Amino acid sequence: MLDIFLSRTKMIQAINATSKAVPTRTTLPILECFLLEARNGKISLMANDMEMAIRTEVSGTIIEEGKIALDSRIFSDIIKKMPEEEIHIKVESNLNVIISSGASVQNLAGNNGEDFIGMPSLDKGTPVVISQLSLKNIIEKTIFCTSPNDSNKMMTGELFEIKNNVLRVAAVDGYRIAIRYCVLNEYYESKSVIVPGKTLNDISRILSGDSGKNVEIFLGKNHILFSFEDTTLVSRLIDGDYFRIDQMITNNFETRLTLNRRDFLAAIDRSMTFVRESDKKPVVLDIKDQGMTLSLTSNIGSMTEKVPVEKSGNNLMIGFNPRFLIDALKAVEDEKINLYLTNSRAPGFIRDEEGTFIYLILPVNFVSRG
Amino acid sequence: MLDIFLSRTKMIQAINATSKAVPTRTTLPILECFLLEARNGKISLMANDMEMAIRTEVSGTIIEEGKIALDSRIFSDIIKKMPEEEIHIKVESNLNVIISSGASVQNLAGNNGEDFIGMPSLDKGTPVVISQLSLKNIIEKTIFCTSPNDSNKMMTGELFEIKNNVLRVAAVDGYRIAIRYCVLNEYYESKSVIVPGKTLNDISRILSGDSGKNVEIFLGKNHILFSFEDTTLVSRLIDGDYFRIDQMITNNFETRLTLNRRDFLAAIDRSMTFVRESDKKPVVLDIKDQGMTLSLTSNIGSMTEKVPVEKSGNNLMIGFNPRFLIDALKAVEDEKINLYLTNSRAPGFIRDEEGTFIYLILPVNFVSRG
Repeated sequence: MLDIFLSRTKMIQAINATSKAVPTRTTLPILECFLLEARNGKISLMANDMEMAIRTEVSGTIIEEGKIALDSRIFSDIIKKMPEEEIHIKVESNLNVIISSGASVQNLAGNNGEDFIGMPSLDKGTPVVISQLSLKNIIEKTIFCTSPNDSNKMMTGELFEIKNNVLRVAAVDGYRIAIRYCVLNEYYESKSVIVPGKTLNDISRILSGDSGKNVEIFLGKNHILFSFEDTTLVSRLIDGDYFRIDQMITNNFETRLTLNRRDFLAAIDRSMTFVRESDKKPVVLDIKDQGMTLSLTSNIGSMTEKVPVEKSGNNLMIGFNPRFLIDALKAVEDEKINLYLTNSRAPGFIRDEEGTFIYLILPVNFVSRG
Repeated sequence: MLDIFLSRTKMIQAINATSKAVPTRTTLPILECFLLEARNGKISLMANDMEMAIRTEVSGTIIEEGKIALDSRIFSDIIKKMPEEEIHIKVESNLNVIISSGASVQNLAGNNGEDFIGMPSLDKGTPVVISQLSLKNIIEKTIFCTSPNDSNKMMTGELFEIKNNVLRVAAVDGYRIAIRYCVLNEYYESKSVIVPGKTLNDISRILSGDSGKNVEIFLGKNHILFSFEDTTLVSRLIDGDYFRIDQMITNNFETRLTLNRRDFLAAIDRSMTFVRESDKKPVVLDIKDQGMTLSLTSNIGSMTEKVPVEKSGNNLMIGFNPRFLIDALKAVEDEKINLYLTNSRAPGFIRDEEGTFIYLILPVNFVSRG
């Protein structure tokens, strides 16, 4: 039976990484467990919610190999509160697990490790290599355009598309599109998959955001595998054809505005005071030669504000969901942003001249809603 | 109609202080409002949930005196997001309120200030003076022994008792008692009142915790008034006779333990892993000449740990609700604490030799529950 010594700090790191794959609610109790395993001289902790599985290796000393499934919440609580750095975990033949550290000895009933559902296997092939920082960034700056639990499965995920040495990531929720490009160090065979938004959310939280550390991404037919440091994450993919986003994007425009991003963001945020979930009012941009006036009117009250802007092209009035403008503006780091408009019924685009990002937002008909 | 200029920073401080008296749920919409008033050359913001009222003065420039009731959530949101430090608030004859700052102009429907329920009046008399730090401390270190929404009204409040130059504060929840003493700079007439726990919780959050700043406390027949810096808080008192706590406290004991507070706390915290709300298991202290063993057994698992202790007196086994021990140990700052015990059915006492605090905890019968 399993008998190992390991470091509390490293086990806590492993718990924090793998616990993202423990489902919050499940009817299958074994899924609420971690699998703790010592095999081939290596100790690992694993969780699997059937959509996604995460395994992390933990250094330590193996007295006897074996595996045991442990209630994730209780195991995590025990380890985090242990008094000393060295922890001894020993499984008895009746699956009783003794966890001890310093003067503290704790007992817990384990479950048979054989009942645990292992990691899905995947034809590995050549991995796409990207820094942890770039992957974390590209996810965080697009994920808000996915739609959780939508009836359209495609909207719950993101397109990951490799062409030559560029990774393109896109998300569409029916009202807006986010597209980000990342230049890779190598050239790859063209490939495209749709990754569940939940998987991407989880991995962006585990990634350290270190630009000096890489992630290897293996794209399979039904699964995607991310490998970094001591951790491996495998997730199902979403099956089907993604939206034809290239057809939705245009480079034509009638009006171009250049704005200070923070000032624009703050003004829109002030309009949010008057927005209630039940009564979605648009923020209206009234663009004239003399400048831009931003306003919002609802049952609660109203606001109006002049926002400094450099304008080229036509005058225009256009309404947007203020929440969507805020999300896009927060995902950009530049001091100045460009907003490209055509008319009050055509989408607005926030994009940079280098072509690293495109945010498309559909306008809202403000006349009929006024 | 009201027309004033004031500072955003100071108004935010006033909002943060007074918002504690805005009820989270009410059937009376006027209670969800702040009263903003300029009168006799002073600007003030006030909230009243009918149990407690808070008023804070805000410096500013008065163009015209008047008063207006404003939805507290919306007003707070508007002020916090304002772009510049100077804010202009002007009420129009139809009770429309115009709030402007820099380029931003916001409109909000106000309510008639005459409908707002004012502060209860109080025969002031001589105040008891205590530092903000001492009052904050004495509340935070006893309040956990009150019982929210108990059928016994006394348990929801705290005894505030003045005798000579000492303030005694006590809380009782049926399973435990917390008593703290604070020496005052002056001698006062004897007085005792029961203050609602919610009031004390709220005031402890508003107090700055500055030992150089004082609070004046006025004890009335039905109300208590706290006055500090620019803020006045008036609360109802709880009517009735408090528990006879002096009869519950004894100085007799059979066993005295001296323990390192942090180590004891950490060991009890480890036992909490095995406690479920639905199945309250006691932590058992087995005190022998050779030392103390702490243990807890539940359906989830079990723990046992030797805890270093200096002991005088009899051997003893006694069970406690671990949560209650944790609360009391967290309220003490000393490195070493003394636990006084008599037998397995008599209360345990944590107290210091200087007599600044007493925590009494009733034991739990661990044999029948084992």
